[in-house]
Formats: sequence, structure tokens, C-alpha cells
Amino acid sequence: MASLIECVPNFSEGRRPEVIDEIVGAVRQIDGVTLLDFSRDETHNRSVVTFAGPAESVVRAATAAVGRALQLIDMEQHVGAHPRIGAVDVIPFVPLGGTRLAECVDLARRFGEQTAKLFDVPIYLYGEAALRPERRRLADVRRGQYEGLKAEIGSNPDRAPDYGPQHLHPRGGAIAVGARKPLIAFNVNLDSEDVALAKRIAHSVRESSGGLPAVQAMGVLLENPGERRYAQVSMNLVDWERTGISRVVREIRQLARAAGTDIHHCELIGLAPTGALLEVASDALGLRGFSPDQALELRLARDR
Amino acid sequence: MASLIECVPNFSEGRRPEVIDEIVGAVRQIDGVTLLDFSRDETHNRSVVTFAGPAESVVRAATAAVGRALQLIDMEQHVGAHPRIGAVDVIPFVPLGGTRLAECVDLARRFGEQTAKLFDVPIYLYGEAALRPERRRLADVRRGQYEGLKAEIGSNPDRAPDYGPQHLHPRGGAIAVGARKPLIAFNVNLDSEDVALAKRIAHSVRESSGGLPAVQAMGVLLENPGERRYAQVSMNLVDWERTGISRVVREIRQLARAAGTDIHHCELIGLAPTGALLEVASDALGLRGFSPDQALELRLARDR
Repeated sequence: MASLIECVPNFSEGRRPEVIDEIVGAVRQIDGVTLLDFSRDETHNRSVVTFAGPAESVVRAATAAVGRALQLIDMEQHVGAHPRIGAVDVIPFVPLGGTRLAECVDLARRFGEQTAKLFDVPIYLYGEAALRPERRRLADVRRGQYEGLKAEIGSNPDRAPDYGPQHLHPRGGAIAVGARKPLIAFNVNLDSEDVALAKRIAHSVRESSGGLPAVQAMGVLLENPGERRYAQVSMNLVDWERTGISRVVREIRQLARAAGTDIHHCELIGLAPTGALLEVASDALGLRGFSPDQALELRLARDR
Repeated sequence: MASLIECVPNFSEGRRPEVIDEIVGAVRQIDGVTLLDFSRDETHNRSVVTFAGPAESVVRAATAAVGRALQLIDMEQHVGAHPRIGAVDVIPFVPLGGTRLAECVDLARRFGEQTAKLFDVPIYLYGEAALRPERRRLADVRRGQYEGLKAEIGSNPDRAPDYGPQHLHPRGGAIAVGARKPLIAFNVNLDSEDVALAKRIAHSVRESSGGLPAVQAMGVLLENPGERRYAQVSMNLVDWERTGISRVVREIRQLARAAGTDIHHCELIGLAPTGALLEVASDALGLRGFSPDQALELRLARDR
């Protein structure tokens, strides 16, 4: 089976729905690509489109989306709260199914080089695809944003793009292209309204304060109209093969119980790799000798 | 997306591997079909081939397999321990992914009618596809086996086929064609060697003795060379949407604990619908608002 890849481009336009419709339409036209999601944020003046398919189809769809965005979005006019360097601000490629991250790294670099040539736009490689170690973190690539990069790109060698011209695209700015593992947005709601407890638990489990690897976490108070309030540990699991859902839930359950409460329920936000959910099933049952290939539809998807 | 269907034909040949290779080869030649498994049983002189794909591809592959089997297997020569009425003894169609059982019922009937015409072979519809209520159980269709059916088919109206001639195919006999839900073979190994306890638990959980709906269960002693022995509750879950894996495991855990022991580990035999495993994950986490569509690769497989 062809490598299955997800692509999640972010566009610096969240206020004109017709523009996002045009971009989404360009993606939809590509054979073999499945549009998984798109969301538009007026406050951040930014949109995110998620699609997936075999590598070559995904590249064609991403190229089509960049083409439309460069025609329709003018960074000289753009304002919004979210950091950004271009009309197509960032394009991550994500491995799905049995695809390896290394394939997405190759793809990101190849796509970056082609896109730079095709549209005469500067490309910065970030994440696992970065060619310079100081560009691994997207925040470092975006430093100074569109306006700062515009001032520095031609003169500061540290800001020279990996591919493309030594100046911004006149309307579209620059594009960060990268590769990363799939991310799981997962919340644990405690049987408690004690947001301080949720914050303490988040502090204990997140990597940045010495907790579990590849876990980002924060404690918040969840308030839904007409429903009780929950202290919530809100997380991104950025590499579920290092720290999976079961592991982090087990840890949180222990900490909650030690504080005299418990987990009330959990929430999975958006999509997650099927393998991460099958691991939860296998852990819960204590399955011996289980392989994700035993999941029928997954096996079929792999073999087709 | 086209309906995804599994097909599990059983052939009355388990001693000549070259015959099964020919049949499997005929299935493999069909575009769009994935061969999932095949197994050959010398004692029962019988083989089972499992493949899946879109409805039309599966029909083509099943037709090709029937064609080869009718050429290569002669029921007049067949002996074996397993009940059978023909060279292709039984062909169940099973819904996968979002496919409904009703589609498999339609498909089984359509396939039965076509196959009867194409090969001049009598077809009996069974399971959910049965046209006569007394043919729902496969055992009733197979009553008297090949030899008994041969004697009765032309004279006893109760044994008249649903499609095809009022006589057996000269070499191939008759074929039972049906539709059923996917079946999960699942074992729970107790932290105990007490097979009597496993038998008591099996008796408690199986439908036939008043337990959980759509559960078949028996208690056995599992002995693997070089490993400790386990009292095992060995099960078929024949409709996981009625009784799922979590439910039956919860029940068995309760009964095991009441008897002073516990579950040691579980085993999933062969393939299971991904939905049944995602349900286990969702139950284990107490997920709110979860949908199988949140499993990325599954969602993609559905939309393609």
C-alpha cells in the first residue's frame, strides 16, 4: 500500500469564509485525498485544513492549496493574534498507518524544494524535517513574525530560507514546512472542581516540568452551560508511542486518588491514530500477543 | 465508499494443498480483494479461506473460487469428520466497517441466484439471508449431509433448493450461502488451573444456558509446552454490538473474583472488527462523546 500521510496546513485567513472555501475546494479536487476537517478562527484570523491520502496525492493537494492561498491572501493586509510568517503559515506532514516519520521528513523536504521553485516563495524546514538544528522549534522559525522576517531575510544569514528566494513572496510571505508525529488532544475530567488540583496534576505529568515524555498538559476549569463543572487536565500527547493514553490516564488516576478524588470521564478531541486507541484496548484487557493487524478494517486499509 | 464485505467460504478439501492453492490463487487474481487468511484442516478434510473488499470484487472472487472448487473437488470421493453438503460447503458474507447486515443479505441472495445459474448447482440460503425460517440454522440446512441431501433433494419439497436445479451438482453437491455478523473468537485465561471453574463461568456467561446474548462459551484447560497451565473460558462473540468484549470480560472478572481468583490475561484469536476494539478502549477510559470516526485510519478507510 502507498504511504498514508496526513497534511495539516494553517492559513492566515479566518474572516473570509469564501477564501477558505476556495482553498478547501482546491484540496477536494485532488483524487485520492480525503478531507478530514477544516476550521476557521475569526479571532486568530487563521484557518486549519486537515486532509490525508497517499503521499503523491497529498503533495498535489498541498500544492493546489498553496497556489490558491497565495492568490487570495495578502499578508500586507493581515492582522491577527496568532504568530505567523505567511499566507500559508505552516504545513506539517504527519505519518499515518504504517508510514514512518522518516518518509514525512523526505516528503517535507521534497515538497519544500518544489514549492519554492513553483511559487518563488521562501521555505523554512522545521520539526523533524529541519536542516538546521535551531529551526526544529516552529516558534524559532516564526521569531519576529511576518514583519520581522521581512526586515531580516535579505540581510541576516541566520534567517536565510532553506529553499527559495532571499526575499518574501510579495503577498504570501514565507512558508514553514515540516514533519511531525500525529498529535492526540486528550482531556481527563476529574470528579472535582478543584482547578488547583488539575494544575498540580498537569505539572506532574507534563514533560517540561519533569513528568512523562512527549506529554504537554495544563490544568483548567471546564464550564459547560447547564452542566456541572470539572477540573480538567487538558493534554497533547505528541508521541503516543513514547507515552500512550493508558499510561497518562493511569498516572492521573493515581494522583487524583491520592488527592481524595478520581477521574470522572475522559474526552478525545478530534482524531487520533487508531493504533493509539487499540493500545488502550489491549492494555485494558491485558491482551497477550495482540497486533493492530488483528483489527479487520485497519488490516484491510493497510493491504489495499 | 463502496460497501466493505468479508467472505469466508469453506471448502470440502483439506488434504491436497495444491487444490487450496488453486482456489486461493483464483481469489488473489481479483482486483480490490484482500486475502486475509486461509487454513487447511487434514482431520476434517476441510479448508477455510477469508477475504474482503468492496461488494462487487468480493462477488467476483467468490464466483472464481466456486468455479475452481467445482472443477477440483469431487464430493463422491470426499470423507471427513465435518458435516458438509458440497465441494464449496458454505459461503457466508459478513459486513465490515460501516456496511449493514442487510446489504450482505441482499448480496448473498443475489450471489446465490447467479451462482445457481452459472454453475447449475443448487443453492440453499441460510442465516440472515434464509428465505425459509427453518433454514436459518446452518445445521438444519446440512441435515443428512451430502449423502442425505442427494437422496432427498428431488423428492422432498422441504429439501428443494432456493435457487438452481432439483438435483445435486454431479461432483460439487450443493452450496449453503448466507449472511452473518462478524464473529470474535476471544479467550479469557484465569489465574487458576481449575478447569471446573472455567466450565462454571462458561455456563454462566453463554446465551444457551441463560447468560449473555450472542455469547458462545466453553471451559477448557490450556496447556502450552514450557508454560504454566490456565483454566480458560473460550468464547465466540457472535454479535459484539449486542454483547461486546468489555461486557463479557467484566462479567467473567466478577465471577472469577467471587471464586477467589482473577483474570490472568486475555487472547484475541484472529481478526476482530475494529469497532469492537475501539469500544473496549472507550469503555476503559470512560470516554464521553466518542465515535469510531475519531480513529484516523478507520475514518480514511471509510471515506475512500
